[in-house]
Amino acid sequence: MSRLTRRIAGALAPTAVVHAHCDVPCGIYDPAGAALAARTVARMVELIGQIDPASTTVADRNKFARCVAVKEQHAELVKHEVQVIWSDYFKPEHLAANPELHTKVWNILKLASKNKQNIDAEAAAQLETAVKEFSDIFWSTKK
Amino acid sequence: MSRLTRRIAGALAPTAVVHAHCDVPCGIYDPAGAALAARTVARMVELIGQIDPASTTVADRNKFARCVAVKEQHAELVKHEVQVIWSDYFKPEHLAANPELHTKVWNILKLASKNKQNIDAEAAAQLETAVKEFSDIFWSTKK
Amino acid sequence: MSRLTRRIAGALAPTAVVHAHCDVPCGIYDPAGAALAARTVARMVELIGQIDPASTTVADRNKFARCVAVKEQHAELVKHEVQVIWSDYFKPEHLAANPELHTKVWNILKLASKNKQNIDAEAAAQLETAVKEFSDIFWSTKK
Amino acid sequence: MSRLTRRIAGALAPTAVVHAHCDVPCGIYDPAGAALAARTVARMVELIGQIDPASTTVADRNKFARCVAVKEQHAELVKHEVQVIWSDYFKPEHLAANPELHTKVWNILKLASKNKQNIDAEAAAQLETAVKEFSDIFWSTKK
Amino acid sequence: MSRLTRRIAGALAPTAVVHAHCDVPCGIYDPAGAALAARTVARMVELIGQIDPASTTVADRNKFARCVAVKEQHAELVKHEVQVIWSDYFKPEHLAANPELHTKVWNILKLASKNKQNIDAEAAAQLETAVKEFSDIFWSTKK
Amino acid sequence: MSRLTRRIAGALAPTAVVHAHCDVPCGIYDPAGAALAARTVARMVELIGQIDPASTTVADRNKFARCVAVKEQHAELVKHEVQVIWSDYFKPEHLAANPELHTKVWNILKLASKNKQNIDAEAAAQLETAVKEFSDIFWSTKK
Repeated sequence: MSRLTRRIAGALAPTAVVHAHCDVPCGIYDPAGAALAARTVARMVELIGQIDPASTTVADRNKFARCVAVKEQHAELVKHEVQVIWSDYFKPEHLAANPELHTKVWNILKLASKNKQNIDAEAAAQLETAVKEFSDIFWSTKK
Repeated sequence: MSRLTRRIAGALAPTAVVHAHCDVPCGIYDPAGAALAARTVARMVELIGQIDPASTTVADRNKFARCVAVKEQHAELVKHEVQVIWSDYFKPEHLAANPELHTKVWNILKLASKNKQNIDAEAAAQLETAVKEFSDIFWSTKK
Repeated sequence: MSRLTRRIAGALAPTAVVHAHCDVPCGIYDPAGAALAARTVARMVELIGQIDPASTTVADRNKFARCVAVKEQHAELVKHEVQVIWSDYFKPEHLAANPELHTKVWNILKLASKNKQNIDAEAAAQLETAVKEFSDIFWSTKK
Repeated sequence: MSRLTRRIAGALAPTAVVHAHCDVPCGIYDPAGAALAARTVARMVELIGQIDPASTTVADRNKFARCVAVKEQHAELVKHEVQVIWSDYFKPEHLAANPELHTKVWNILKLASKNKQNIDAEAAAQLETAVKEFSDIFWSTKK
Repeated sequence: MSRLTRRIAGALAPTAVVHAHCDVPCGIYDPAGAALAARTVARMVELIGQIDPASTTVADRNKFARCVAVKEQHAELVKHEVQVIWSDYFKPEHLAANPELHTKVWNILKLASKNKQNIDAEAAAQLETAVKEFSDIFWSTKK
Repeated sequence: MSRLTRRIAGALAPTAVVHAHCDVPCGIYDPAGAALAARTVARMVELIGQIDPASTTVADRNKFARCVAVKEQHAELVKHEVQVIWSDYFKPEHLAANPELHTKVWNILKLASKNKQNIDAEAAAQLETAVKEFSDIFWSTKK
C-alpha cells in the first residue's frame, strides 16, 4: 500500500471526539474530522453487528454499551464538524456555486441523528457518502 | 496546488479540540490530529505576534485572550492525541523497532507544556517538528 | 411587573452554557436557550464596555478576561442551540412555509462568530434580533 | 392552544444539558433550566417504560442505553442548575423569608440522585414537583 | 519531612479540575478534592500577585490569562465538589449532629464565587479555611 | 480506626472524573487522583458482579449501564492523571533514578484500556497495584 493510500486510510481513522473551538479565525478548515467521525459511526455499527444480540454475558453487554456510546459521540461529532465548516468557512460566493449547499448540510445533520437513533449499517453508509459529498464541495472551492 | 498538496495542507488544519474517546478499540489511529493541533499552536503564536502588545483597545485584548485560550486547548490536545496513540496503538514490537519511542513521546509532552506556558514561535516550530517525527514513526510501523 | 412579564424576562436570563444532548428524540424543543445565550453575549459586551480599557488593575483585567470567556461560550451556545433546532425539529413542511429558513440560520451562525471575534454592541443586538426572528418562525410552526 | 400555553409547554422542553458558567455575575437567573431538566428525566422514564424490558433487539437496546444516558445527564443538570441559583442568586434576606430553603434544595438534590439510580416514574414526578416549588420560591423573591 | 506530612502536603496539591460523576453510589467520598481546588485558587492568586500588573509583555499577559482561567476552573470545582458531598454523602443524622451544615455549605459556595470575581488573597485564604472546616465535619461523621 | 487510616481510606474514594488543567505550572502534583480512579474502576467491576447478568429488569439494566459508564470514565481518568504526572512532574534526574519509569507508565495506560474493554476483577486489581507502584516512585523522588 502506497504512503498516500495509507495516509488516506489513516485520515479515515478518528481517534477522538472533536469539538471545534477555533473560530479565531485560524483560517484553516478540513472536513477530514467529519469523515473520520462518520467512519467511526459505521465501524461501531459493524462491531455491534458482531455481538450476539441475545447474549447476556457481561463482556458482550459491556462491549455493546461502549459501542453505543462511541456511536453517539461520533454521530454528534459529524453534526458539529459539518455545521462549523458550513457556517465558518463557506462564503456567499461558494453558495452561489453550490446552491444545494444548505439542503445537503441539513440532510447530513438529519442523517447523523438517524444514526444515533438506530443501529443501521445502511444509514451509516449513507452518512459516509453524504459527508464525502460535502467534503468534495469543500475542496472544489479551493481550486 | 495539486489536490494532494491541498489535502496535506488541509490535514494540517485543525478545526477542533480533539479528545480521544474511542478505545473500543476501533482499530484505527491517525497522528493527523496531533499534527493539526501543533499547527494551531503555531498559528496562534503567529496571530499573537501580529497584535501590538501595548495595545489596550478592547478589540486587541479580546483577540489576545482568545488566541491564548485556543493555544492552550491545542497544546493540551497535542499532549492527549500523542499519548493515546502511544499507549493504544504502539505494541512491544514497534518499541523494539523504535527504542527511543518513549523518550520522544515524553519530550513532545514537555514541549507542549512549554508552548502553553510561553508564546514562543521557536518552541511552536519545535513542537510541529517533534510531532512530525512521531507521525513518521507511526507510519513506519504500517509498512 | 406581572408574573408573565417576569417569566419572559426570566426566560431571557441564561444561567448556563448549553449543549444539546437529547436527540432521542424527546420530541420537545425550545429556542429560549438560544435567546438566553444571545442575551448573555449582549450582557458581556455591556459589562466590558464599563471597564476602563486602559486599566491595568488586576481586578479590571480579571473581569475583562472572564467576560471575554463567557461571551465566547455563549456565542458558541447560540450557534449550537440554533443548529440543533434547525436540524432536529424543523421538517420539510416547515421549510416549505419558511423558504428562507436555511439562509436565516446560516446568518445567525455567522453573526455569532462575529460576536466572538469582536466586542461590538451592535453586532450583539443584531444577534438577539436574529435569534428572536428564528424563535418566531419556530413558534409559527406550532399554530 | 394559546401562545402563552405553548410558551410554557415549550419552556418545559430541554434541548440541552446545561452547565452554569456565568458567575460574572450577569445578574440574571432562571429556574426554567432546572424545570426543563426535570421534565426530560420524566420523559426518559416514560420512553423507557415503552420499551419491552425483555427485548434483545439492537434497536431496543440502543434506545434503552440512550435513554438511560440522557436521564443521567438531565438529573445531574437539575442538581447543578438548582445549586447555582441557590448559591449565586439567593441572598440572606430571601432565606429569612423562606427559612426552609436550604432543606428544600438539599432534598431536590437527593431526589435527582434517586432518579439517576432508578427508573421510577413517581420519583421523576416528585422531582418535577420539587423543582416547581423551588421555582415558585425564586419568583416570589421578585415580587 | 515524614511520609505522612508529605502525603498531607501532596493531598493539598490539585492536579486537575474535578467533576463528580459517580452517584452510583460508589459509597466513598473525600473532601480532599475540594481542599485541592481551594489550594489551587490560592496558588493562582499568589502567582498573579507576582506578575507586574502594568506589564504588557506577551509572556506576562499569557501567564495572567492562564492563571485567571485556572483560578476560575478551580473555584468552580470547589463549588461542585462541596455540593456533591453535601447532597450525596451527608444524611439527616449528620445534619442533626451539625445543624449549621447547610449554612456553612451555602457560605463556601458564595465564597468560591467571590474568588472567581476577585483576585484577593484574603478571600482565597478564607475559602481554604471554610473548606477545611467542611472537611472536619465530614471526618467527624466517620468516628 | 485512626484518623490516618480513615484519611487513607478516604483518599481511595474518588468523587469525580478528573481532567488536569493546571500546567501553569502550579508546582504541585499528587498521584492520589490516579489511585482514586483505579479504586473506582475496581468498585464498578465489583458492583457489576453483584448484578444478575441475565436480569432484564429495568432497575438492573439501569445499574449495569451506569456502572459501565463510570468504569469507562475512571479508567480514562487513570490514563490521564498518570500521563500528566509523568510528563509534567518527572524530570530527567528522576528517570535516571527510575530507568523503568517510561515502561511502567506505558503499561499502566494499556492496563487502563484493558479495564475499559473488559469487566475483569483481576485486571482492575492489577491496575490498582500498578498505580500504587507509580505513586511509590513519585513519593521516592520527594525524599
